[in-house]
Amino acid sequence: MRVKSLADRYRAVRAATEALSAPLSDEDHMVQSMPDASPAKWHLAHTTWFFETFLLGAEPGYRAFDERWGFLFNSYYESLGERLARPSRGVLSRPALSEVRSYRAHVDERMARLLEARGDELAPVAALGLAHEEQHQELFLTDVKHHLFANPLRPAYLPPRARATVEAARLEWRAFDGGVHEVGDDGRAFAFDNERPRHRTLLAPFALASRLVTAGEYAAFIEDGGYSRPTLWLADGWDAARAGAWTAPLYWERSDAGWTTFTLRGLRPLDPSEPLCHVSYYEADAFARWAGARLPTEHEWEVAAVPMPVAGNFADSGELHPLPEGDAPHFYGNAWAWTQSAYSPYPGYRPDAGALGEYNGKFMVNQLVLRGGSCATPPGHARATYRNFFAPDKRWQFTGIRLAKDR
Amino acid sequence: MRVKSLADRYRAVRAATEALSAPLSDEDHMVQSMPDASPAKWHLAHTTWFFETFLLGAEPGYRAFDERWGFLFNSYYESLGERLARPSRGVLSRPALSEVRSYRAHVDERMARLLEARGDELAPVAALGLAHEEQHQELFLTDVKHHLFANPLRPAYLPPRARATVEAARLEWRAFDGGVHEVGDDGRAFAFDNERPRHRTLLAPFALASRLVTAGEYAAFIEDGGYSRPTLWLADGWDAARAGAWTAPLYWERSDAGWTTFTLRGLRPLDPSEPLCHVSYYEADAFARWAGARLPTEHEWEVAAVPMPVAGNFADSGELHPLPEGDAPHFYGNAWAWTQSAYSPYPGYRPDAGALGEYNGKFMVNQLVLRGGSCATPPGHARATYRNFFAPDKRWQFTGIRLAKDR
Amino acid sequence: MRVKSLADRYRAVRAATEALSAPLSDEDHMVQSMPDASPAKWHLAHTTWFFETFLLGAEPGYRAFDERWGFLFNSYYESLGERLARPSRGVLSRPALSEVRSYRAHVDERMARLLEARGDELAPVAALGLAHEEQHQELFLTDVKHHLFANPLRPAYLPPRARATVEAARLEWRAFDGGVHEVGDDGRAFAFDNERPRHRTLLAPFALASRLVTAGEYAAFIEDGGYSRPTLWLADGWDAARAGAWTAPLYWERSDAGWTTFTLRGLRPLDPSEPLCHVSYYEADAFARWAGARLPTEHEWEVAAVPMPVAGNFADSGELHPLPEGDAPHFYGNAWAWTQSAYSPYPGYRPDAGALGEYNGKFMVNQLVLRGGSCATPPGHARATYRNFFAPDKRWQFTGIRLAKDR
Amino acid sequence: MRVKSLADRYRAVRAATEALSAPLSDEDHMVQSMPDASPAKWHLAHTTWFFETFLLGAEPGYRAFDERWGFLFNSYYESLGERLARPSRGVLSRPALSEVRSYRAHVDERMARLLEARGDELAPVAALGLAHEEQHQELFLTDVKHHLFANPLRPAYLPPRARATVEAARLEWRAFDGGVHEVGDDGRAFAFDNERPRHRTLLAPFALASRLVTAGEYAAFIEDGGYSRPTLWLADGWDAARAGAWTAPLYWERSDAGWTTFTLRGLRPLDPSEPLCHVSYYEADAFARWAGARLPTEHEWEVAAVPMPVAGNFADSGELHPLPEGDAPHFYGNAWAWTQSAYSPYPGYRPDAGALGEYNGKFMVNQLVLRGGSCATPPGHARATYRNFFAPDKRWQFTGIRLAKDR
Repeated sequence: MRVKSLADRYRAVRAATEALSAPLSDEDHMVQSMPDASPAKWHLAHTTWFFETFLLGAEPGYRAFDERWGFLFNSYYESLGERLARPSRGVLSRPALSEVRSYRAHVDERMARLLEARGDELAPVAALGLAHEEQHQELFLTDVKHHLFANPLRPAYLPPRARATVEAARLEWRAFDGGVHEVGDDGRAFAFDNERPRHRTLLAPFALASRLVTAGEYAAFIEDGGYSRPTLWLADGWDAARAGAWTAPLYWERSDAGWTTFTLRGLRPLDPSEPLCHVSYYEADAFARWAGARLPTEHEWEVAAVPMPVAGNFADSGELHPLPEGDAPHFYGNAWAWTQSAYSPYPGYRPDAGALGEYNGKFMVNQLVLRGGSCATPPGHARATYRNFFAPDKRWQFTGIRLAKDR
Repeated sequence: MRVKSLADRYRAVRAATEALSAPLSDEDHMVQSMPDASPAKWHLAHTTWFFETFLLGAEPGYRAFDERWGFLFNSYYESLGERLARPSRGVLSRPALSEVRSYRAHVDERMARLLEARGDELAPVAALGLAHEEQHQELFLTDVKHHLFANPLRPAYLPPRARATVEAARLEWRAFDGGVHEVGDDGRAFAFDNERPRHRTLLAPFALASRLVTAGEYAAFIEDGGYSRPTLWLADGWDAARAGAWTAPLYWERSDAGWTTFTLRGLRPLDPSEPLCHVSYYEADAFARWAGARLPTEHEWEVAAVPMPVAGNFADSGELHPLPEGDAPHFYGNAWAWTQSAYSPYPGYRPDAGALGEYNGKFMVNQLVLRGGSCATPPGHARATYRNFFAPDKRWQFTGIRLAKDR
Repeated sequence: MRVKSLADRYRAVRAATEALSAPLSDEDHMVQSMPDASPAKWHLAHTTWFFETFLLGAEPGYRAFDERWGFLFNSYYESLGERLARPSRGVLSRPALSEVRSYRAHVDERMARLLEARGDELAPVAALGLAHEEQHQELFLTDVKHHLFANPLRPAYLPPRARATVEAARLEWRAFDGGVHEVGDDGRAFAFDNERPRHRTLLAPFALASRLVTAGEYAAFIEDGGYSRPTLWLADGWDAARAGAWTAPLYWERSDAGWTTFTLRGLRPLDPSEPLCHVSYYEADAFARWAGARLPTEHEWEVAAVPMPVAGNFADSGELHPLPEGDAPHFYGNAWAWTQSAYSPYPGYRPDAGALGEYNGKFMVNQLVLRGGSCATPPGHARATYRNFFAPDKRWQFTGIRLAKDR
Repeated sequence: MRVKSLADRYRAVRAATEALSAPLSDEDHMVQSMPDASPAKWHLAHTTWFFETFLLGAEPGYRAFDERWGFLFNSYYESLGERLARPSRGVLSRPALSEVRSYRAHVDERMARLLEARGDELAPVAALGLAHEEQHQELFLTDVKHHLFANPLRPAYLPPRARATVEAARLEWRAFDGGVHEVGDDGRAFAFDNERPRHRTLLAPFALASRLVTAGEYAAFIEDGGYSRPTLWLADGWDAARAGAWTAPLYWERSDAGWTTFTLRGLRPLDPSEPLCHVSYYEADAFARWAGARLPTEHEWEVAAVPMPVAGNFADSGELHPLPEGDAPHFYGNAWAWTQSAYSPYPGYRPDAGALGEYNGKFMVNQLVLRGGSCATPPGHARATYRNFFAPDKRWQFTGIRLAKDR
């Protein structure tokens, strides 16, 4: 198989972002439905700013497309100075979407020349920029989903699509031996700094579920009083559930005909066979306790994942919602699996130098690691060593549950 | 002078709203920069919903343009059911601006027929609908100003316009006799229910300043430590000033070259001669105390205003910012004057019947009355008996100060 | 009748405060159950600080009992410098109650000498200090009631007392003529600055209820859905009711046997004949609307009150709860009547000079006037011109409803 | 050495709690200076409730001392029903301290009988009760310190005590080999369930500082702009520092003569040689980054601690403040060392059955592990496997820093 050149990959990744933007109007690009989410336009601009700042900006003589935009589109890099407060991103009716598109074109044109001229040398940072853009592709979808659901009209991002009726496979427990395992990035392909250094870890024997928890299994937890039995919950989880008046996963609603769920392709009846998603860590943990199991650690997951093909229901299927995991289940995609592992630095972790050192390291507290990718993850973005992370009360990502057990 | 027909007035008022919308992009129409403000698109739709609900909707056989939109565009009418929470108006990327324009056209077309058929009978409610739309024209401008200022690029709504240098007239005190005066709507023209019933009030002799306080006079208050001397302030005002870190009126910023102020025609150096605006009641009250004067009561203002021509710098001047009040000052326009009068019902006040009874009456607590209109008020909307009202900490309206004194 | 000397009055008022303190333990004196309330010990100290600061402190050579205590016991006088934040008053285990009692004795001893030596000259400030202490006697009781109710054990302040069964008199409407009336302090006895200057006011003809609204009448409002019908409420009131989850007056609870109410003499079944108390302005306003009436203005109340004897169920009855108003109802006492009048300065109002000018004037916004005194008001403290004031959402005072009507 | 009987230990631990209470007045026992802290009286009662509920209450025929008190003194056991909200513990003037002392005596008397009769059988739960009471002894001191500091008079808990001038030893790095280590409770003595099961862990080679970071070293971090350089901080830490306006550890204040620190024996000049305490995890982490080091993991700490004698400056020294670690430093006591380890369940962790299962397990998220004990820890309470835990923004415990490094 021919490996794509960096310039080709750049073009492909950038085009994929624009394809996500295509179904949305200028107005749709404006909405920020909560401080955690960003407007679609902001994602388009911020990812461009990333290339401009960390690649073009390092070139002698490069002049910013508009030097005032750094203030607008810097996300969180303290090294690069003050910036617009995150909850205010929704006020940016200017620059217009058309100007942001010009910005993208401008940067793309210069990036093409730069990668041609000095691609080898710049490959590491360029690869980071592409991985960064892919992360924002996933956020683009989850943020749009949140904003469309916040609209009482419940508009769909894309038209509904017929789905075959597939039954979820029976849950089986796959056994794994304990012992010392190597985990983390082995340096053969791109990885984030938080996946390094590769190191040895010691695991006790464990078992992992053969598939993700289904919506139907989770509905049984609800029926059994899952949301009203405090002893199933972590103390902080119980507090969050009461404060948020949670009685079901995000996007679930009870109708006369049973549960519905809101998807990027519109509202539809809940399919009990589909993998559960849009639960917080707290709900995942409570469900696992109810089920007599537990959540895996991140390295249990990784050890199990390494031999598996990195295939599954990713964003390129166009479903943008989990698909039932039938007889030939995949290990990746559909929904990120919450792990019980706190997002901490690996032994010997060193953040990258300079402002890029802020990419991952400064978030290594108060978050849990998630593994495996989701139906909103770009294809090629997932891998066995990938460490996604969110705070335990977040529910707007495609986050689900893969159970584990001691052996 | 030929009096316009109701249908003509309807067309004119509706067209004026659309003229306000013209300089803005679809994206600009989306922004809600704070819970007190609404997106421009929402104003366009809500005013239309008002006519649809209270006039067309009362017609047998009328079917709503889209029956789901009542939930979106009902502002605060409890009698009409649940509605979108006010701070969430910014999520409405759908309906699109183009759909809202179709909504306007649809309602306008049917309103034209209705007014032709039954205009006389419907005149009172139609006149209320037009006054309501004019109120939203002013809010449209103040909300857009707030949103453009929230954007770090500080874009202008309209291009700058050259202004002649005019010096403010010397402040003089106009004396008024005490005694029993009649105040409130005399029934000869449209008025809101809160201006009724006309009744007698007893005033002590008083004096009123011949013009509004200027920005230069207010700057002197700042220089004299106005924002750091608690004994000048009401207790709640001092708390608000500290909580909001107020050190100047809204939209004022200190630059190396002195004060600047943000206007709908862009940022510019503060003109010390121009009437002050964008102060809260608390600041108005503290300034008056510092100046050895006080704020007028609403009826002192009204008694003084009745003989004056209803002329001044209103929105039709196109300035959209106060103009210096020179030798021939007007009593109206430029900036609403805070009065010390709480917004309470007049003796014998009865709200209108039905849902329209919620228009004014339910807000008669925790607000202060303002009088006189501003540079954002539509021409013809101001009158001597008009009672505007805002909570004492609000600053985004064109609110200024006319001083009063006992005699 | 022999008029008490100032020194006698001083002793009597101070002793009355100590009598209130007697039933409470040292621990009871510590509790601050909400930021609006203060610990009993703080009241004992603050009232003493008032005399020390404004009377003894003005004497040459006086040295403060403890100069650090000004920071602790200054309530809100900005002129006198920084002070302990109000919500932190509950941390003051030191000074001990015994030290505060010594402080009281120390100041009392010096005050006795001072009043003997220069009583005539100091009478106005001394009278203010005594009125101030009486106000704190009422707050002492309302704050203790709130704190005892916050304790799940619901301890009583004093033992229960048997009450005769008295039926409330039939509500009758007393008619009053309109016209110009003089209101405000006539200078013949002590009054606060906010009761001045005496001035003329113009009233329309009105009618006032012969007695306060009863608990039974209010229970009927509840039964009729009073707390679930938004159109009965001011908009801010409806928001407050929902935010506070109000379904009844403060201290009312539903039991199997019907309503109970918590009193300073313990929990007991609600007596439908007793005057309602512990409602906010919002509830009072909603009730009046439901009842087809309205709340009086403060001057309607005053004009009606002037000819009435200042007698009623005050704190000296020892009931500390409203008593049914039977055939010989009194106009004063039992429960403060909310008026619809905003707490604003009278025409020509001038606050006292110096720090005492902060006593009343700086609170003249965002509050409503209450009239008439309550079952927790010290005898002799009430008068026709007295203007009490609280924010419209407060419920922990003995606040009730006297209805009014236009004629 | 003769091992104390369980009954002897019970008496000793209970007496130690009462000794802590002795210097405080009834009023002092009332204060709750923040929601995280509890009043001293509450600690006295809650620890008693624990024995009553989990030991006496399990006996047939036992009747609660007062059955209403379970609601008051249950801390967080959902299995045992509703309870007083934590921030409201300061309202409990009743029961009086004297009644709580009677409660203690009552429970102690019955506990003595029970331990005599069935001590062997009940030893595990009784030992938990004693360890629980010892934890509250430490909280008693830290909560009292917080409350006394909140009082502007800054009263001392105990009189000052002269301290010899001791210089801190030079910081040396102790090297440890990597490899597989056993960690966790070995079952030979009492331990909490969160220390189990004992299991193997794999460590990379590391080095640990020979002593805690000193106040002087931390002052150098402050001088070097530690609190104003965001790139030294975790993102959440920077937010917390700004929200809390942190510029130094809790209890540090700048005076003209340099830093002071508030101690349980009063305010005094900061001794640069004494171990730093009262920093959050965020500050510890930022300091470590500034120092070119890192915080240890909990198992690095444990592996280093196992061979060391469990000796140091604990609460029985009576200092109640860290003492400089001179040439013969101890590994335990003085200040808890923040580790970078999230508080997670050990592999195979099972909480105890029943309500006691809520003791530790439900808190295993959003907290960091601390190790080693402090100057407020009761002697005999510390051990190598002990896992203390607090949220990363907490500063009122005696929490300090022991640096670590990779080798």
